[in-house]
Amino acid sequence: MKEFQLIEKFFKPLTNSNKAAQGLIDDVAKISLKKNEELVLSKDLFIEDVHFLAKDGAFKIASKLLRTNISDLAATGATPLYYMLGFSKNDSVDEKFVKEFCRGLKSVQDEFGLCLIGGDTVKSEKLIFSVTVFGSVKKNKIMSRNNAKIGDLIFVSGTIGDAFLGLNKSENIFLKNRHFFPTARIELGKKLLEKNLSKCAIDVSDGLLSDLRHICEASKITAEINLNQIPISASAQKFLAKNSAITILDLISGGDDYELIFSSNPKNRKKILQLSKDLNLDISCIGEFKKPKSKKFSITLFDEKNQKIKIKKFGYEH
Amino acid sequence: MKEFQLIEKFFKPLTNSNKAAQGLIDDVAKISLKKNEELVLSKDLFIEDVHFLAKDGAFKIASKLLRTNISDLAATGATPLYYMLGFSKNDSVDEKFVKEFCRGLKSVQDEFGLCLIGGDTVKSEKLIFSVTVFGSVKKNKIMSRNNAKIGDLIFVSGTIGDAFLGLNKSENIFLKNRHFFPTARIELGKKLLEKNLSKCAIDVSDGLLSDLRHICEASKITAEINLNQIPISASAQKFLAKNSAITILDLISGGDDYELIFSSNPKNRKKILQLSKDLNLDISCIGEFKKPKSKKFSITLFDEKNQKIKIKKFGYEH
Repeated sequence: MKEFQLIEKFFKPLTNSNKAAQGLIDDVAKISLKKNEELVLSKDLFIEDVHFLAKDGAFKIASKLLRTNISDLAATGATPLYYMLGFSKNDSVDEKFVKEFCRGLKSVQDEFGLCLIGGDTVKSEKLIFSVTVFGSVKKNKIMSRNNAKIGDLIFVSGTIGDAFLGLNKSENIFLKNRHFFPTARIELGKKLLEKNLSKCAIDVSDGLLSDLRHICEASKITAEINLNQIPISASAQKFLAKNSAITILDLISGGDDYELIFSSNPKNRKKILQLSKDLNLDISCIGEFKKPKSKKFSITLFDEKNQKIKIKKFGYEH
Repeated sequence: MKEFQLIEKFFKPLTNSNKAAQGLIDDVAKISLKKNEELVLSKDLFIEDVHFLAKDGAFKIASKLLRTNISDLAATGATPLYYMLGFSKNDSVDEKFVKEFCRGLKSVQDEFGLCLIGGDTVKSEKLIFSVTVFGSVKKNKIMSRNNAKIGDLIFVSGTIGDAFLGLNKSENIFLKNRHFFPTARIELGKKLLEKNLSKCAIDVSDGLLSDLRHICEASKITAEINLNQIPISASAQKFLAKNSAITILDLISGGDDYELIFSSNPKNRKKILQLSKDLNLDISCIGEFKKPKSKKFSITLFDEKNQKIKIKKFGYEH
């Protein structure tokens, strides 16, 4: 399949005829912004045998690629608009692969309301995909990881550890789907920004502890969290009950959750409870940001007996 | 070297403290536009053993990566503003490599006035780099490959074929530099747009014939060009005189020139001559766009005796 055919047959339909894509006839795309809008951008590389396996199949690969990249936008409160795709081919990439890959992209486009506007196709031995994703926010309104304040509560959406177990530890379909089809918390991010409930968020990609530490370092602050307040799904609890080699400490350093950690002033607790109901999404308070005692901006973890637990592993460096 | 150190020590200085980069503390960047401006974007993947060799060295690899990507902006008339970088590491990537790589990026930043605003670092076996580059144009003013009109003259900047010879055929330093350090014709593109001299341009990456054919297909038009009007450098002419196995036909299908092909109404000929003087850049008229005789939108090539020459190879598909 020539590049031209690939683009005409499979990629062009993903543009939804949006004029930013310019019909994919040039090597460039073009974006206009409304007055009072800013563009938020994120870029990810996705590499065979590092971020995915060929045996995962094109649908799952494409789906995870786009979902995880959109998750970076969720953490800022932005609304997804467009993406550009770097697409590599090798001998294993046939028409069926491309078709399934594009079906995967389309399913995410439809769920989050964005479209393809350009990219690049190349040949390579191992499969490599690269996505740059674009969203919009109102000017000077964006959540960032350096805005946590002393006394803010620490919240996390959804449940933690499912994706870690779903990768290669459990055959449970819920856990597996949580790995391959993470739900970028776009609606939550937008509402937090809109209702002025948070100025600081991050998405959990490296692991709850690791990403919370990113907030601590950027905000120059300390976090105190309680292990028994970490939200764990019923499927994950069942798994832990049967497999003593894996503990909740593994789940909070496991990564790939793509839930949001965010800070909020305690006065907002009720509003966040209401938001949780409105979005039909669990939101748990797992701790509080405190004044750092030294220049070490990190996390103190307490167990159910309020005893400090030593953290051996924070997370996974992709 | 950890990702954090890599970013702090080497990548952060490349942001020139531009606020779009947000200090590289988040996974996102943020772009504002002036009223009446649009953003032009291009994305390229750059893969070891396909687009470069490890032995080229980090400085040359980085330089070519950014220069070729900016060239896509030149063809639209945009002014480069920012770029995002996807950077991969393997065991061959030590501190010295990263330092040289960033020195290569910096040299291009300084020449074209853009800065880094974000990206992603990953591990991979083969080296992979990905760049998304951002430029600005005035609203609704952009050159595109689908705007060539019947009767327009066909111009090309600089000289053609140097990079093809410099890749692995000649040890001549001028030709080698033309391969590794192509000059994106940003100033030319901007002036063509500003002075309303062209609405249609493309940069030569796949080869003069191949990229001119892209214009023909997008504009649904035919091009007639004359072989003896193709601009060839003194170094390339010397090479051809000594190496009968390689002809000018190889040069115009060779690729990697990163010169601009553009269309212009014949009435602009004098102004283009003046622009050539102002920019101290050769601009040659190589032919004319004609009404297509069939639905085949392609190129007719004439030799010095005005005889048609059959085109066997248009260019290189990257």
